[in-house]
Amino acid sequence: MDQLRFDGRVAVVTGAGGGLGKAYALLLGSRGAKVVVNDLGGARDGVGKSNFADAVVQEIKDKGGVAVADYNNVIEGEKIIKTAIDNFGRIDILINNAGILRDKSFTKMSDQDWDLIQAVHLKGAYKTTHAAWEYFRKQKFGRVIMTSSNAGLFGNFGQANYSAAKLGLVGFANTLALEGAKYNIKVNTIVPTAASRLTEDILPPDMFEAMKPELIAPVVAYMSHESFQESGAIIDSTLGYASKAHLVRSQGTPLKNKPSDPVTIESVQENWSKVVDMKGAEHLDKIADVTIDLVQKLQDFEERSKLDAENESYWSTYNYDSKDLTLYALGVGASVVNPSDLKFLYESHESFSALPTYFILAGMCMESPLVAKSMPPGKHADFTNILHGEQFIEFVGDFPGTEGEFTTRTYVADVLDKGSSAVSVVNSEIYQNKQLVARTQQHIFVLGQGGFGGPRNSKHSVDVQPAPKRAPDAVVEQQTAEDQAALYRLSGDLNPLHIDPNVATVSGHPRPILHGLASLGFSARHVLSKYGGNESSNVKSLKARFVKPVLPGQTLVTEMWLDGKRVNFQTKVKETGNIVIAGAYIDFKNIVSGGAPSAAAAPAPSGSALKSDALFAKIKEEVDKNKEMAKSVGGVFLYNITENGKTVKSWTLDLKTPVIYEGTPKSGKADTTMTVGDNDLVEIASGTLSPQVAYLKGKLKIAGNIMLAQKLGPLLKSPAKI
Amino acid sequence: MDQLRFDGRVAVVTGAGGGLGKAYALLLGSRGAKVVVNDLGGARDGVGKSNFADAVVQEIKDKGGVAVADYNNVIEGEKIIKTAIDNFGRIDILINNAGILRDKSFTKMSDQDWDLIQAVHLKGAYKTTHAAWEYFRKQKFGRVIMTSSNAGLFGNFGQANYSAAKLGLVGFANTLALEGAKYNIKVNTIVPTAASRLTEDILPPDMFEAMKPELIAPVVAYMSHESFQESGAIIDSTLGYASKAHLVRSQGTPLKNKPSDPVTIESVQENWSKVVDMKGAEHLDKIADVTIDLVQKLQDFEERSKLDAENESYWSTYNYDSKDLTLYALGVGASVVNPSDLKFLYESHESFSALPTYFILAGMCMESPLVAKSMPPGKHADFTNILHGEQFIEFVGDFPGTEGEFTTRTYVADVLDKGSSAVSVVNSEIYQNKQLVARTQQHIFVLGQGGFGGPRNSKHSVDVQPAPKRAPDAVVEQQTAEDQAALYRLSGDLNPLHIDPNVATVSGHPRPILHGLASLGFSARHVLSKYGGNESSNVKSLKARFVKPVLPGQTLVTEMWLDGKRVNFQTKVKETGNIVIAGAYIDFKNIVSGGAPSAAAAPAPSGSALKSDALFAKIKEEVDKNKEMAKSVGGVFLYNITENGKTVKSWTLDLKTPVIYEGTPKSGKADTTMTVGDNDLVEIASGTLSPQVAYLKGKLKIAGNIMLAQKLGPLLKSPAKI
Repeated sequence: MDQLRFDGRVAVVTGAGGGLGKAYALLLGSRGAKVVVNDLGGARDGVGKSNFADAVVQEIKDKGGVAVADYNNVIEGEKIIKTAIDNFGRIDILINNAGILRDKSFTKMSDQDWDLIQAVHLKGAYKTTHAAWEYFRKQKFGRVIMTSSNAGLFGNFGQANYSAAKLGLVGFANTLALEGAKYNIKVNTIVPTAASRLTEDILPPDMFEAMKPELIAPVVAYMSHESFQESGAIIDSTLGYASKAHLVRSQGTPLKNKPSDPVTIESVQENWSKVVDMKGAEHLDKIADVTIDLVQKLQDFEERSKLDAENESYWSTYNYDSKDLTLYALGVGASVVNPSDLKFLYESHESFSALPTYFILAGMCMESPLVAKSMPPGKHADFTNILHGEQFIEFVGDFPGTEGEFTTRTYVADVLDKGSSAVSVVNSEIYQNKQLVARTQQHIFVLGQGGFGGPRNSKHSVDVQPAPKRAPDAVVEQQTAEDQAALYRLSGDLNPLHIDPNVATVSGHPRPILHGLASLGFSARHVLSKYGGNESSNVKSLKARFVKPVLPGQTLVTEMWLDGKRVNFQTKVKETGNIVIAGAYIDFKNIVSGGAPSAAAAPAPSGSALKSDALFAKIKEEVDKNKEMAKSVGGVFLYNITENGKTVKSWTLDLKTPVIYEGTPKSGKADTTMTVGDNDLVEIASGTLSPQVAYLKGKLKIAGNIMLAQKLGPLLKSPAKI
Repeated sequence: MDQLRFDGRVAVVTGAGGGLGKAYALLLGSRGAKVVVNDLGGARDGVGKSNFADAVVQEIKDKGGVAVADYNNVIEGEKIIKTAIDNFGRIDILINNAGILRDKSFTKMSDQDWDLIQAVHLKGAYKTTHAAWEYFRKQKFGRVIMTSSNAGLFGNFGQANYSAAKLGLVGFANTLALEGAKYNIKVNTIVPTAASRLTEDILPPDMFEAMKPELIAPVVAYMSHESFQESGAIIDSTLGYASKAHLVRSQGTPLKNKPSDPVTIESVQENWSKVVDMKGAEHLDKIADVTIDLVQKLQDFEERSKLDAENESYWSTYNYDSKDLTLYALGVGASVVNPSDLKFLYESHESFSALPTYFILAGMCMESPLVAKSMPPGKHADFTNILHGEQFIEFVGDFPGTEGEFTTRTYVADVLDKGSSAVSVVNSEIYQNKQLVARTQQHIFVLGQGGFGGPRNSKHSVDVQPAPKRAPDAVVEQQTAEDQAALYRLSGDLNPLHIDPNVATVSGHPRPILHGLASLGFSARHVLSKYGGNESSNVKSLKARFVKPVLPGQTLVTEMWLDGKRVNFQTKVKETGNIVIAGAYIDFKNIVSGGAPSAAAAPAPSGSALKSDALFAKIKEEVDKNKEMAKSVGGVFLYNITENGKTVKSWTLDLKTPVIYEGTPKSGKADTTMTVGDNDLVEIASGTLSPQVAYLKGKLKIAGNIMLAQKLGPLLKSPAKI
């Protein structure tokens, strides 16, 4: 690696007569910087004079470097900067390192102890930096280092004065980083841990011995180099180790239950555990983001409260990825035996997608207390007396992608009185990126809790439709596996009724039963394949009633009747003849009979800016410059760039011609198709994610000629390093 | 909820003539505090005098409160505290709120702009707090609020002076929180966002209008209350919303490759992306923790480097939980059809455990570049020319629990020359909590890369043992499922060879093949069940060679030969007669023939202190007080408390007698056994995790009489609320 040099740069290091400052000065001097070695001289308390600075200057000169000594107090920082200008005509780097200590317990601290520390650390850094600032602005270059301390970041006994000054410097750097940005002035903070009593008590003796300034100097030198682009960073370093610190904020909480409620000391107390819950805490980059974040959260609170006013709601989040989809698909009987199922089982399949019934899970909200709360007085519901009676799902807008996060609102739309049982009609609204993507409805039967004089029906309820009397138009049979329930439960419903023989027996079953939603998943797959072109996004809605349990190993028979764009269906168990799912239907956008696969997915939408755009722009530039190199790779490569598991942009790298453009290949077919998330691709290009690892972890999906893809590596990587 | 009162407390609020300070004063006054309303008077720039403070005092008095006005400048803070003492004889609460602004771009900032802001904000807070401190200490009570700003936390244009002072106050509070701890002095920081130009630009008009001090006052009042126990917290609040901020530190990195390497500017640059990688950043509570953390990391670096010096190593972490174990068990053919398999499939089974072969996965490290690097000059390995040839695993110490994290060291022990192919002998050492728990060894065949004149054998290699010539002592047959590979790959090896028909064809297979480790998992299960008592922890080691591929759907025949405590085995495909796994063996601690289940697990170890200990102590106390209530529940409950998925302590709640004690039931059997993590149980008891949710998510496992467990709820919850 080439040496990082400072030739032509002028650096001021305050407090450079010894310790850290001396190490900084020597290192910069050895790398070509002209150094102003500032030191007041004298002992640690800042009193007296000596020739420490002279000795450092001599040492730099002895090694062929250039340096001058400066004896000014940082409180007159402008004089130190003047030394740089007078001797070298410029100033590029300012390392605010000078400091003293006046440790006292706060009780014993005098105003002088306080004032002196603030003056040297805070005012001193202000004075030097202020004097240098105009030079930095004019030359559009500057590197400033503030020196903080873990005593400031964490507090430390006997250092109230020092910790205030030291964290003050971080606040100072925060603003200077902003104001310096457009002038290429980078202002960063070093938190060096030096040998001290505190560290001596804790560190093993050999580490304490090794705590040398020379181990921190390279960090500060790097942060002072022209190649260093960060600003406003806090870097902790000692003993050849370094880490970065920054602030994170909790997600926080409204301090009241409804927007119209008052905020009181008591409502604050009530919500406090959410205020200080640091799970999910996030770093924000700048002050404006704090306000934007707050507006978002308050608007969410308002919106949710409006919905809560209609029906008390339960909000939850649901995350899924391609592995979840595959596991689910196996759980509902998708099999590699059917080539048409592979698109639900193989995350790199070019048409990989979720089964539509998967998204029912996002609306399940088993942890919601709403059903229990919805019971009329004297009636109760808990997990020992409830049954999943009916299920509905409807897709709204774009069909969800193969990974993502949902926010789900669940509420009880109505409670029905069915005589012996009560029925809670539970609605869920499933949102992705604030867009409603699906609605679900569950009918939860609460056994033995009817008879409270409630309504028998509800206008909010989506009803089943009985199967026609005629013979079915199509029938599909499939045997479930003995381990079907053991497998399906890994998709989230761990109710022991589906795995524990004892619980099954207590509940009156000969052995653990299959989940109703698993049977429904089988039948929905059958219908989708027979009449829906096997295309999940063709499904508009689905409704079913669970009538009887299925035992794993039994054979499901799905009977279908075509009626316009609706397919009515019911499911029987072949071995018993029992109907297990009744009155069910799927509404399709289009009927595609005979299970013929539908046309290729719609061309990828275009337009929105992605992080990887810059990468392809660079590749285009490279290819335009080196057409012959590109042709030597050859092949037509299609990149599908995804967000939330959905392709949001495509790029064609036609290296035969060669030409690079947005969109799918204009003629012919890609030799190799790569599907990869926007962020993942950027990580691959920057070298932080190896393409092999990305591929083996399913983040980079390659269809077609895999070997050809390997040749692309150098092309992909080189521009990213620019 | 009872009102939080301040009767008998004396509060000083600086800058209380208007805005936030006024709101604080009025609220505290209305809740019984005697308030010193400090205000210099005058306009925002602090010049001039007026009777703002008088008006606030009057307003407090009008509402029946007690207050006095104070006109001192905070720079003479001792006079303000004197006003409290002179009028009310004490001081309990100090809210440092006074402040002014001198916004200027840094270029235009004058020394006066800097000094005035530091004086009022920082020195002022120092002066008042210092004057009050002795009173707080003597009375062993004090509540101090510092007022910071997002301008300090994030920086803000034109506020270099203000951001320095405002973050300085946080540093000041950090140390005061420590020094005040043993005197019940709590020092916290409020970050109020007031209506300002900045917020006006970003906020919707109605929110800007609503930005009232009265919405922040309850937060500050709560933080001033005697019930408030936090100290050193940064609380951001506005508009009836509040969040907490704190610092987190990146995991950081050594700035060199080996401990003996020098730290250079270049080595810093090389490692920088790891320094600033904030994934996995953590909050540390106190300064000493920073050092402890560093010592740990440096020691790890030293230890790893020593190992690296022997063999270049690759370090990785591996996390698993009960769902991973169950998914794996299904992937290697465990089935509910065999009751003895249920312990591998059902996370609430009383003997739930991992299959021993599961832990081979922790040593796989597919992302490691070591094999590629191990190739001699002119030879190469990538994922297109490597084959998993042999596998070994050996357990050391305690058998791993049902969830946890491993740290794995992987290195190439030797590279063998087998003529046409090279073989990398890859060792892994698998650690949990710094203890070595398992070693694995893979023989990776690198096709076509032999013939480099290397050794044919290695003393580091664990060799297979050919099967005896005699007929096997036992044979177990099991058919794999057509979807076996599709399922097994969800345990992590997503190589498309096992799912993609095109890739399989290119590789010369009629269709995707089963993973060698899946076949091995089947056979190891067969051997474990036949000769190992079906007890995973009975396995000492296992070795196997993969000879030929298996197609999903084929039937595996495991042939076994007993030889002391070793069981030799090989695996054939029934349909073809091919041997697919050869020279394999398992060494057991004890041979348990005939698949008889082993005795119950050893009694839980005891001794180590757990968080839930206090809970059981309270339950014991409650039960001792209310023996009749306890008897009314009845039943004997066994709690197995786990850490990392292993039972580390048991408690018996014998409510028949009633008596509570540590350990398993002294006589008879528990009616209900609950298995739950130490942290989860504490969360359940504190009410932050509902037992139903814990149960449905598999965090609380209940065996035996589930209904009885429901009765326990009140008993479990009440003491935790004390």
